[in-house]
Amino acid sequence: MKIVVVGGTGLIGSAVVSQLKPRHEVIVVGHKSGDYQVDIGSPDSIRALYTTIGKFDAVVNASGLIHFGKLAKMSDSLYRLGINNKLMGQINLVLIGLDYIQDGGSFTLTSGILDEDPIATGSSASMVNGAINAFAKASAIELPRGLRINAVSPTVIREAMEHYGPFFRGFDSVPVAKVALAYSKSIEGAQTGQVYRVLY
Amino acid sequence: MKIVVVGGTGLIGSAVVSQLKPRHEVIVVGHKSGDYQVDIGSPDSIRALYTTIGKFDAVVNASGLIHFGKLAKMSDSLYRLGINNKLMGQINLVLIGLDYIQDGGSFTLTSGILDEDPIATGSSASMVNGAINAFAKASAIELPRGLRINAVSPTVIREAMEHYGPFFRGFDSVPVAKVALAYSKSIEGAQTGQVYRVLY
Repeated sequence: MKIVVVGGTGLIGSAVVSQLKPRHEVIVVGHKSGDYQVDIGSPDSIRALYTTIGKFDAVVNASGLIHFGKLAKMSDSLYRLGINNKLMGQINLVLIGLDYIQDGGSFTLTSGILDEDPIATGSSASMVNGAINAFAKASAIELPRGLRINAVSPTVIREAMEHYGPFFRGFDSVPVAKVALAYSKSIEGAQTGQVYRVLY
Repeated sequence: MKIVVVGGTGLIGSAVVSQLKPRHEVIVVGHKSGDYQVDIGSPDSIRALYTTIGKFDAVVNASGLIHFGKLAKMSDSLYRLGINNKLMGQINLVLIGLDYIQDGGSFTLTSGILDEDPIATGSSASMVNGAINAFAKASAIELPRGLRINAVSPTVIREAMEHYGPFFRGFDSVPVAKVALAYSKSIEGAQTGQVYRVLY
């Protein structure tokens, strides 16, 4: 399969690339590095990426910006970062991707544990993750041509605990290679409309 | 208690008003009718509403616009209606409401069944409902001064089946008076961070 991994230069994305590369043609897309670049906050940038890459069998997104901040300090505009980037960026990767994906292809989005297991400063992340999970379940029943879609919802990544540990006290972490398996299941399996929660 | 019911002129909102009125001072807010008017899509309109009403003990929202349409015909801009209105409208009712709500007060938002049980044409509603539920769970742990927040997620309303029935074939409906009980539980009970799913 020809598989596009958006955010393929990041922690999760590069583990997904490592998991898939032995068996597939993997195209690594980053914000500033990788084989190609995209700004998922821009529908024009997404369309330009797909036009350059041409037809593909699967697209994974493992990128997305969100503002973390105390609820009392949040505002409409601070929520818009997550909405424009991690939320609508992923939805636009699907909507625009419909014009470029081969029959029977798959979309795999990334949410995260915070919709069910929140932390302080994470209300925007929780909101976006809940939205992505629901979008994956809902859009799955409307996709044409045997296309599939799933979301991967990992807990905090073990390799990132040094950085994020203070925000996730008491959370068990999971090795990034284990998270990558969920993306493999989504792409190489046959399920659709699923949320793969990788919690241990 | 002094309770503000935004969308209090609608089907669900007026049932909430009927449920609460015997015991509380209820302020009915509509888009064009009611005691006061608000456009929840506008943070300025929300602030103007709260400034006019003054301090209150609870705010309920039972309003919100969303575009229903086939996934293949959806676009970034069509998703923005639900994002700007039902999603950010409700979040802004909370964020701005923090400046006007009394200690120990409550926020009650409205989502809906489609995040878990999707229908064709409903991907935007599913996405917004998932976002609202996750926001209620997440913001609950950061609210100051004993404030609480819950979301009510009803299935299709029996009194609306004549209108919505064709979109919800096979769904059981629930009488609107029963849905109103969930709002009462949210406002008059002590729970927070809950999603009250009213399915039967």
